[in-house]
Amino acid sequence: MSSIDTLEALRVRVAAFAAERDWEQFHSPKNLAMALAAESGELLEHFQWLTEAESGALPAATRDEVALEIADVLLFLVRLADRLGIDPLQAAARKLELNARKYPVDKARGRATKYDRL
Amino acid sequence: MSSIDTLEALRVRVAAFAAERDWEQFHSPKNLAMALAAESGELLEHFQWLTEAESGALPAATRDEVALEIADVLLFLVRLADRLGIDPLQAAARKLELNARKYPVDKARGRATKYDRL
Amino acid sequence: MSSIDTLEALRVRVAAFAAERDWEQFHSPKNLAMALAAESGELLEHFQWLTEAESGALPAATRDEVALEIADVLLFLVRLADRLGIDPLQAAARKLELNARKYPVDKARGRATKYDRL
Amino acid sequence: MSSIDTLEALRVRVAAFAAERDWEQFHSPKNLAMALAAESGELLEHFQWLTEAESGALPAATRDEVALEIADVLLFLVRLADRLGIDPLQAAARKLELNARKYPVDKARGRATKYDRL
Repeated sequence: MSSIDTLEALRVRVAAFAAERDWEQFHSPKNLAMALAAESGELLEHFQWLTEAESGALPAATRDEVALEIADVLLFLVRLADRLGIDPLQAAARKLELNARKYPVDKARGRATKYDRL
Repeated sequence: MSSIDTLEALRVRVAAFAAERDWEQFHSPKNLAMALAAESGELLEHFQWLTEAESGALPAATRDEVALEIADVLLFLVRLADRLGIDPLQAAARKLELNARKYPVDKARGRATKYDRL
Repeated sequence: MSSIDTLEALRVRVAAFAAERDWEQFHSPKNLAMALAAESGELLEHFQWLTEAESGALPAATRDEVALEIADVLLFLVRLADRLGIDPLQAAARKLELNARKYPVDKARGRATKYDRL
Repeated sequence: MSSIDTLEALRVRVAAFAAERDWEQFHSPKNLAMALAAESGELLEHFQWLTEAESGALPAATRDEVALEIADVLLFLVRLADRLGIDPLQAAARKLELNARKYPVDKARGRATKYDRL
């Protein structure tokens, strides 16, 4: 199997994986958004009883499990974006620009306040 | 602002965004997993009352909003992986291989059954 | 074990369950909100590949599993509300009144549009 | 409006609210599970940047907002259970019994470890 070096390569591979299994019929954006959210719930489960400090110093085995949950979220995110014809990197770049305006450095520094209350 | 062509470039930009605002203090893996899950909830909200067919034919304005929600999930996913020293693409490649074994083409074709019930 | 007939009886039982296990230390509102969201993710997982029609006609075994996921969400909801001194029924009654104003019958009939776009 | 003293009274009121607006068509279990998860994401959002200690000492205004998010989760939970013919209190009582067996006091005391690793 060739390596996966880019998000675009991942998109292609995930699409092929689904096509080979005739799974397109299940992959409506609605269903994929559900699957993405379900996986993000599994990610949460790893952290829910940990302190913030503990969450930053995971045992190797837990870190490995968390890596696979992150993978699951990414797989469904890439698949969802693909089905909607959205480029995730481009969307992220656009969102970062919006965030830079919503959270100007001088107002947001050191504060977790939501932008509409800054 | 230079363009963001790769997940690695996005990682660097998101890290700089947080550092400029002194937000590292808030970005424990625990908190980032929460933020990712909250954003995936916002994504759900766009789809919850749509039929599957409608979810595949979004009006342009909705599609645009959904793109920004996908962006939010990706931003927190990249940031979380960064804080844990995890490479999301490598993790996704590993997960795809595991999935290929859990869902062999001949058993999984056309079925959404979970692997342990195939 | 005495039966649990009311949400208040459930609150008392859940609090005793936690106290007996010395789990109060883990039950910060932050952590409980995470646990609630993680359980709601498990609930999603049961429905993500089903059609809406299928979701309304679950096989008995699935319905039983779903009942236990609903239970998990309710247990954490009751516990979270308890830790915050919130009465869930009273909050729900207040929210219903707000919703009645946001979604007047004549405007909202047959439409799933969010209130700010009605 | 009469008061809502029990979960059963809430169920009846939520069902009437939906019927008056002809919303049954949107209230498949699949869609309601999505709405519940989306609301649990909004709940998360209030807590994601707070420390655990801060989450236990919310300002009154935040606590009020959180109460309404808890209400939203409960409203969709009650509605979902109703559509599936599930009694949430009975399910919660059953789940507590299962949990009591999975987490015996002597093994679980002071530990947040998942039952299968105790």
